[in-house]
Amino acid sequence: MNRDECLALDARDPLASLREEFVLTEGEIYLDGNSLGPVSRGAQRRIHEVVDHEWARGLIRSNNTAGWIDLPLNLGDRVAALLGAPSGAVLVADTLTFLLAKIIGGALDVQSDRHVVITDAVNFHSDLYIVEAMARRAGREITVKAIDRNTLDEHLDDDVALVMLTHVDFRTGEMLDLQGITSAVHAVGALMLWDFAHSTGAVPVNVEEAGVDFAAGCTYKYLNGGPGAPGFMYVAPRWQGVLTNPLPGWLGHARPFDFASHYESASGMRGFITSSPPVIALGALGGALETFERTSMAEIRVKSLALTDLFITLVEDALPGVFELVTPREHTRRGSQVALRHERGYGVVQALIERGVIGDFRAPDICRFGFAPLYLRYVDVFDAVEILVDVMMSGAHLDERFAVRLAVT
Amino acid sequence: MNRDECLALDARDPLASLREEFVLTEGEIYLDGNSLGPVSRGAQRRIHEVVDHEWARGLIRSNNTAGWIDLPLNLGDRVAALLGAPSGAVLVADTLTFLLAKIIGGALDVQSDRHVVITDAVNFHSDLYIVEAMARRAGREITVKAIDRNTLDEHLDDDVALVMLTHVDFRTGEMLDLQGITSAVHAVGALMLWDFAHSTGAVPVNVEEAGVDFAAGCTYKYLNGGPGAPGFMYVAPRWQGVLTNPLPGWLGHARPFDFASHYESASGMRGFITSSPPVIALGALGGALETFERTSMAEIRVKSLALTDLFITLVEDALPGVFELVTPREHTRRGSQVALRHERGYGVVQALIERGVIGDFRAPDICRFGFAPLYLRYVDVFDAVEILVDVMMSGAHLDERFAVRLAVT
Repeated sequence: MNRDECLALDARDPLASLREEFVLTEGEIYLDGNSLGPVSRGAQRRIHEVVDHEWARGLIRSNNTAGWIDLPLNLGDRVAALLGAPSGAVLVADTLTFLLAKIIGGALDVQSDRHVVITDAVNFHSDLYIVEAMARRAGREITVKAIDRNTLDEHLDDDVALVMLTHVDFRTGEMLDLQGITSAVHAVGALMLWDFAHSTGAVPVNVEEAGVDFAAGCTYKYLNGGPGAPGFMYVAPRWQGVLTNPLPGWLGHARPFDFASHYESASGMRGFITSSPPVIALGALGGALETFERTSMAEIRVKSLALTDLFITLVEDALPGVFELVTPREHTRRGSQVALRHERGYGVVQALIERGVIGDFRAPDICRFGFAPLYLRYVDVFDAVEILVDVMMSGAHLDERFAVRLAVT
Repeated sequence: MNRDECLALDARDPLASLREEFVLTEGEIYLDGNSLGPVSRGAQRRIHEVVDHEWARGLIRSNNTAGWIDLPLNLGDRVAALLGAPSGAVLVADTLTFLLAKIIGGALDVQSDRHVVITDAVNFHSDLYIVEAMARRAGREITVKAIDRNTLDEHLDDDVALVMLTHVDFRTGEMLDLQGITSAVHAVGALMLWDFAHSTGAVPVNVEEAGVDFAAGCTYKYLNGGPGAPGFMYVAPRWQGVLTNPLPGWLGHARPFDFASHYESASGMRGFITSSPPVIALGALGGALETFERTSMAEIRVKSLALTDLFITLVEDALPGVFELVTPREHTRRGSQVALRHERGYGVVQALIERGVIGDFRAPDICRFGFAPLYLRYVDVFDAVEILVDVMMSGAHLDERFAVRLAVT
């Protein structure tokens, strides 16, 4: 595959025009949309509308006139469309960790005769911390087992209340079997909570088809919602009204403006709302979602696999044996990122950043490259690999400025 | 006091020029800054810088180059200056309710041999819900006593772990005795948590002088941080490193980029951080705080009392006996709002809004008017009362369109 062939692929890419919707810097190749997505023109436009019109002119009236109060559920419905979830089953609010806390707390209350929560020993660390923290406050002895996820079957029994896994591994980019694992968990009467931080907007998922009980994710990665954008949570309709919010607030009350002394949950997902919605951030997300609404997750997936395939092939052809490919080759097990292991990985990533190829590093030795099909071109992949080759051939990654991080890790 | 005298007061008001910093609508008088403050030019400017430059151009690099990672503590220091708190003792993050959850959870762990939490029966309802929720998860039997705050002394004994009160009552505008109550609580070995939602930016407080253990508040009211802006929390230096965060996350870890499996809290307030900071909202707040940094809480207080005194006097002179003044007359017991009781209060507020005087209503019968000295003029108070007189004399508040809310309350 040469550069002209990549340009030809771009010329017939059905998503090509969506790149115009993003504010990108000429000469940079952004392979870190799995950490923070770039700003879209829709997000810019909506932020300015929210700030300069809804807030400035409408002031407190915008709670009603601009529908601020309903934003968490309205945006939830738009995220639901990317998850295969029905309308009314997704809420956008808070941050991923708080939403996990709500689900874990609620699920442990429901599964009151069970004493084990299973998670992945290499799960994202916030997930590990919050599951420990909520287990400690469950009101009974709960054991959190952080296991090798490949041995899940051995750990499933009728004392397992909840299994919490991340669908796409943040380090390796490995995608787990949503349907198979959910079914295995259900077979012992446990409930399944999926973290979709690296899935939503990146890979197709269908929570209804897979029978998922609960899911949560963030919106600042592939969804391009902006730095520190809110999280989202999904609760299967069968659990709404059963699970209660362990961190309740006034806007989740059945009648918030009655100012009642005791909490009575609103029905549906509204009961999981704690606080006033972060309106400006939700504006950004609303604008960002417009690009997704001009395509489909199926179309995004086709391009995502093509981009990651291309990257893997070009790297292996040009730099045989230099990196260990950590991300699975099989399409069914791959998210939308490629992780390459190298003992001087920190230097590799830093040298690339200096040359306009933005990826990131995950200790101790992972170079992580995210491929977001909405704004990346095939030619970007080609050029990024050319620059990677240049770095490795010139030894730029060995620069002593990059030795510090090695000492730390 | 006639209109010309009010104009004369404005002419010699040392805060007068700050009004220029706000985007206000000609012909409207905004008396709801205690619910949602208006947008400032500083907030607009910073939002645009954050979105169009830091996010669009810096992308993920802005975590370091734009100091995103440090925003919660840097903004915390700026809020600390309004609280009489030392640098490093305030964090801006999450929302008020989650921050209360962190403090309540942490404090109950520390006070492990005590079994009672006291709060105010007429506290803001989110406060009541979250204290109940966290008490239920304390790992031991905890009784939450929601009392008449005037009887606090009768309830204080050596089984009280924590007292949580709101410093300025959201309905009545009554301000409590920060120092006296804190001392009484300490006398029995209990800890004191103050909710400053209606205090910060409105009335001077000095948490160090008063010996306050913990405080939290929101930034979208008098601080003008924007709709759904983050909250802030204060933990007295003597409790930092003692209290642990019951809702931990990766950014509060001692070494976040080590991706450690087990949580080890960062020192100081950093350990109370859960998630990635909401950068755009923090930009808005940073811009909004600039106006406070051009004056002092002492100067703000002088004008606040003058404005509320003027409002009370004008209303009582023009409409004797029409309203019950709910807010205390004594300066030491008054926040920065005036609450008037009227059985058709909902109609009064709606009729005023239709005439460009924006206040709000709190069931069942409170008309609530907030006075924010940064942008309100004496002449605004005069004009607002003129319009109120017109409403009451014409019977506009009795319009049948406003009868609905009466049936509900």
